[in-house]
Amino acid sequence: MLKAFFNPRGVAVVGASTKPGKVGHDIVANLKNYGYNGGVYPINPKAKEILGLPVFKNIDQLPDEVDLAVVAVAPAMVVTSIYELAQKNIMACVVVSSGFKEVGGEGTQLEKDLAKACQETGVRIIGPNCVGIMDSFQGLNASFAAGMPNKGHIGFFSQSGAMCLAILDWSLDNAIGFSKFISLGNKVDLTETEILHLLAEDEDTRVIMGYLEAVEDGKKFMKAAAEVTRKKPVVLLKSGVTSAGAKAASSHTGALAGADAAYEAAFSQCGVLRVHTVRQLFNLAQALARQPLLAGPAMAIVTNSGGPGIIAADSVEKLGMHMAGLRPETVDELRSFLPSIASVYNPVDITGGAAAELYGRSLSITAEDPNVDGLMVILSPTATVDPREVARLICEEKTNKPIFSVLMGRHSVEESRIYCMEQGMPAYDFPEDAVQAMAGMMQYRKWLNTKPKPPDLVEGKKEVVQGIINEMRAVKRREMSETEARECFKAYGINVAQSIPAATSDEAAAAAEKLGCPVVMKIDSPAISHKSDVGGVKVGLKTPDEVARAFLEMTSRVSRLKPNAWVRGVLVQEMVQGGRETIAGVTKDPQFGHLIMFGLGGIYVEVMKDVSFKVAPITREDADQMVKSINAFPLLRGVRGEPPADMAALSDAILSLASLVTDFPEVSEADINPLLVLPRGQGAMAVDARLSLSRPNGEE
Amino acid sequence: MLKAFFNPRGVAVVGASTKPGKVGHDIVANLKNYGYNGGVYPINPKAKEILGLPVFKNIDQLPDEVDLAVVAVAPAMVVTSIYELAQKNIMACVVVSSGFKEVGGEGTQLEKDLAKACQETGVRIIGPNCVGIMDSFQGLNASFAAGMPNKGHIGFFSQSGAMCLAILDWSLDNAIGFSKFISLGNKVDLTETEILHLLAEDEDTRVIMGYLEAVEDGKKFMKAAAEVTRKKPVVLLKSGVTSAGAKAASSHTGALAGADAAYEAAFSQCGVLRVHTVRQLFNLAQALARQPLLAGPAMAIVTNSGGPGIIAADSVEKLGMHMAGLRPETVDELRSFLPSIASVYNPVDITGGAAAELYGRSLSITAEDPNVDGLMVILSPTATVDPREVARLICEEKTNKPIFSVLMGRHSVEESRIYCMEQGMPAYDFPEDAVQAMAGMMQYRKWLNTKPKPPDLVEGKKEVVQGIINEMRAVKRREMSETEARECFKAYGINVAQSIPAATSDEAAAAAEKLGCPVVMKIDSPAISHKSDVGGVKVGLKTPDEVARAFLEMTSRVSRLKPNAWVRGVLVQEMVQGGRETIAGVTKDPQFGHLIMFGLGGIYVEVMKDVSFKVAPITREDADQMVKSINAFPLLRGVRGEPPADMAALSDAILSLASLVTDFPEVSEADINPLLVLPRGQGAMAVDARLSLSRPNGEE
Repeated sequence: MLKAFFNPRGVAVVGASTKPGKVGHDIVANLKNYGYNGGVYPINPKAKEILGLPVFKNIDQLPDEVDLAVVAVAPAMVVTSIYELAQKNIMACVVVSSGFKEVGGEGTQLEKDLAKACQETGVRIIGPNCVGIMDSFQGLNASFAAGMPNKGHIGFFSQSGAMCLAILDWSLDNAIGFSKFISLGNKVDLTETEILHLLAEDEDTRVIMGYLEAVEDGKKFMKAAAEVTRKKPVVLLKSGVTSAGAKAASSHTGALAGADAAYEAAFSQCGVLRVHTVRQLFNLAQALARQPLLAGPAMAIVTNSGGPGIIAADSVEKLGMHMAGLRPETVDELRSFLPSIASVYNPVDITGGAAAELYGRSLSITAEDPNVDGLMVILSPTATVDPREVARLICEEKTNKPIFSVLMGRHSVEESRIYCMEQGMPAYDFPEDAVQAMAGMMQYRKWLNTKPKPPDLVEGKKEVVQGIINEMRAVKRREMSETEARECFKAYGINVAQSIPAATSDEAAAAAEKLGCPVVMKIDSPAISHKSDVGGVKVGLKTPDEVARAFLEMTSRVSRLKPNAWVRGVLVQEMVQGGRETIAGVTKDPQFGHLIMFGLGGIYVEVMKDVSFKVAPITREDADQMVKSINAFPLLRGVRGEPPADMAALSDAILSLASLVTDFPEVSEADINPLLVLPRGQGAMAVDARLSLSRPNGEE
Repeated sequence: MLKAFFNPRGVAVVGASTKPGKVGHDIVANLKNYGYNGGVYPINPKAKEILGLPVFKNIDQLPDEVDLAVVAVAPAMVVTSIYELAQKNIMACVVVSSGFKEVGGEGTQLEKDLAKACQETGVRIIGPNCVGIMDSFQGLNASFAAGMPNKGHIGFFSQSGAMCLAILDWSLDNAIGFSKFISLGNKVDLTETEILHLLAEDEDTRVIMGYLEAVEDGKKFMKAAAEVTRKKPVVLLKSGVTSAGAKAASSHTGALAGADAAYEAAFSQCGVLRVHTVRQLFNLAQALARQPLLAGPAMAIVTNSGGPGIIAADSVEKLGMHMAGLRPETVDELRSFLPSIASVYNPVDITGGAAAELYGRSLSITAEDPNVDGLMVILSPTATVDPREVARLICEEKTNKPIFSVLMGRHSVEESRIYCMEQGMPAYDFPEDAVQAMAGMMQYRKWLNTKPKPPDLVEGKKEVVQGIINEMRAVKRREMSETEARECFKAYGINVAQSIPAATSDEAAAAAEKLGCPVVMKIDSPAISHKSDVGGVKVGLKTPDEVARAFLEMTSRVSRLKPNAWVRGVLVQEMVQGGRETIAGVTKDPQFGHLIMFGLGGIYVEVMKDVSFKVAPITREDADQMVKSINAFPLLRGVRGEPPADMAALSDAILSLASLVTDFPEVSEADINPLLVLPRGQGAMAVDARLSLSRPNGEE
């Protein structure tokens, strides 16, 4: 597929035009103008010649050595073209025509027809509604963009055509190069997932960079990304984060933007480096494409001015790295030749009066220090130093550690900055940009340091859960009763507080006797999911008598407030003492499926929003990380002499929950709230349980 | 002073040089080359002529019409020059010579001598160790910088000379203009405070922009900034934030960088807009200099491409503004002429095929919508639209609402971007830059909407506090006993839990009888500030007998663990039930003085670091804001049916604390922990109190 799209023997342009300025004309011109050495075959029923090339009347007349077609006809004619291309065994196709899903109405139907044509013929399609594709190494420009990217090792794809054009335009004057440039458009067939695989195979691509508004199939994407990121870094800008962004996203491409928590979790679980601005996308991608990977977080700065050195050091610490402590040998060596007023500690400030040559020596010596993992060189323009000379020395430096150069200013340094970029040295305007790229690189290093591992799945008693689900489906019920939910969690090894259902006050008193007071009483009704809102929970009932009275009071109150709710009775439950409330839950994200949540119970979740997420299924390490990554984690580890909580038991419960929903995709929501965690060695216990199912397929 | 420095009748260059490349030569050249129409008087004992100007042998020979001197002689000769200048009544001086405080050792002494010369002569000095000063409107370039800023309305000052040079260099190719450009250097005399006043007076300056590593005198600075920011926005980049940055800062200029919390609080209390990167500094300053102020947070976006529109909408929400809901009339009018596939809601997407003219119309119509406070225009390069045409239409738009233009890309839009900048329209590369500038502008609008107000001071019984302090000073004690600290807080109107000191077990039992059980017992020793660490706190003692036993146990335990601590006995204290633990405290920042802290008690402070700060003295509104701005505030407002806390009582206590330390500057630290807040109307109560004093002046 890579070959058909990017190294085709010949390219047909369906809907080629004789008129300059028309898309169908610009594509032919682009194919001719950038050194592509295969044949270019314009198709137009009326024209004889376009830009000196003979024109074909229709697809059928094309010669055999055509592997790729660019389709730029009116939207209503695109589907027919696909069938005709398939007839000629042209199986790769870029549809630039617009007027599909993005315009709604009839366009939506046209897009469905196009999808069907894909499936029936096996023709692979990029687009529709895209700008096209480019390969700088093949000189192939199968797009209507104005220009061709510089050669380079960033493989780029974008859901938005405008972002393609803007990024191309930006790159041309910044000496940023691309291997492949792919405009995804509406993604009727090839999505980001296939493109990831395609760029992963591509030898010219070292870094994959992309702009997305939504992922089409979250699970497939995660699987692909988890593989690809082991070979090459993947840097993505995903927009549509906030509600306003998401609103704009859905009016733009009709894509349903998933909740941001799911994207955040999914990207981190499959090693995707997420950035949040276009500038960050460039900053990080160019560093990854041009420099060796950081081995660790210890940075050294060589600068000719204090202020920018301070700003850089600030950013280094803020973004989770640290300033390297230089070895005494390094310090001594620097002191031996730098001016007396220079600072020979990190940041190494060679001072504004220092000549270019001192930059080179300081950089080499600092780079050799084993305490240093990565280097930043900052140049502020001064009268005494020639930035071109400094740029040359930086680019000549031989080290296997990454160097990030910052040439402050513009007027007198732009030439040198572009020189650096051309020489393969990432060069930035301001220190913060460089540090942010370092931080992204560090994140990738950490990802590579983790071992790929299949998810850990707890073996549950599937038949128990299946039985309950079957019963529910039979009566078209989607909300489990608490008893049922407890059974399901128990079937996956989660400790649940003991409880006994009771239908009468006598039964309730007997249950309390059996469990031992104090007990908790809860209303038992599948129709009532928020029990405390209707006075359906009583804690600390001290005697069987009190329990009996509470039964009458609770049931009569609930029947008054919820006259139509079917009430089975109550659950009488042992009252677990001590321990700390946590919450574990599941929601279903439209793109990525089950999203597991963990947090400290009560106000930590409700007020502080202090929760962590992962997409199921997960590994044990993922579960541990969910527990550790909440802000309130020190509370679980124990503060002020309190014993540490049983964190392993929390991970167990989270894993069980993830396994349960992985086995039963029909689960749409689940909550264990509270999941009471006891001191280390004493486990965790589900005190309240909820679980609901998705609508069965086809049911509204 | 403004006139002497920036509109002098003549300028002397002390230490002028005949050799190009020397600082003393470049200054003379800069004074000659940029249109300054006063006299330039080089001084050099040996030379006859420099750049065609006659040279004076010494300061004494200068004519009378010299108001400003630029001093570039060897550091050891600078002080003498100041006395000579004073003799000639030249009272404004820029010292560019380096070799002072920044090099340590002898330089530190030279700087002290220079400070003395200032005081003795009344000569005002900018520097030493600075690049110089420039005034683009006067054509005055009294610096050794390579170049002169474009004319514009940003007044800039910088503590770092390198930042001056880099920012000047950057501005030259970006059509960013400056009114005044001031390199502060070591700030031996004029500091950021005087410069703020000076730029506030300056008619050519609309926005003040600065780079600082530390503020010299926090109180003076805050007073000046609070005044100045009412007239003009002040945008500051303050580095040295993290520990690494602070370390680099102190090795750079010897300035002691204050804790960042103090800067953050101080800047926000006096309306300074703080930015965190150099790019943000530019982004915001150019918007404030060139556009009318935002009236509110409702933004509209006009774009020719969906992707960038989504990114922009995301950023708008993320930074605390929102996307305006357009009126139906606006929507209808847009629909009447835009292509059918355009989005007529906000973001208004006029589509990639739209001609420039549609930009202009859409922008005008959207700007007229009363629901819109500010506008962003985004242009992505496409084949159909001429960016120059769009730039012209944007610049011609007549509206009193701010417009931020984003010209995505570079190659095909740079010319248009620069055109916008030249026309006074802020123009950015990427949407996020523009939104960040909007957010800064919004913050300034909010500041202007607050009314300036003197601090609220609680009238305390000063004599009580003074008495205790006198006793402590007499015995050279710096840590108050809890009883003393309680007395001080009580003297300023803070409720303290009742307590009775007891020196024997019988006294303790009697105290418990009097207060009513249960009670709390705490060890009473000025030598022990963390009582619970030594078992010095017992809560919930239920009977006088239990109290007596606890006394013996506690005192013997403490004397075992802290054999040398003087123990007065214990405090028996009423046990306040209910309520929520908060903490209020004071620390002393070296730059800004007393810093008041508020947070929720216990783990919220220790684990979540969820606290707010203000510099004392404060207003009641400040106190309210401290309470409201912690993340856990919803807990105080009441969640899950709990009653709201007595927030007014918390503000009262915070105000009292701030008043106490304002009256007694010798207080170095204070803690009310916990400050128990009861439900609304029931007040707040200090349960534990600590207070300590600074070392008296002169004592080590």
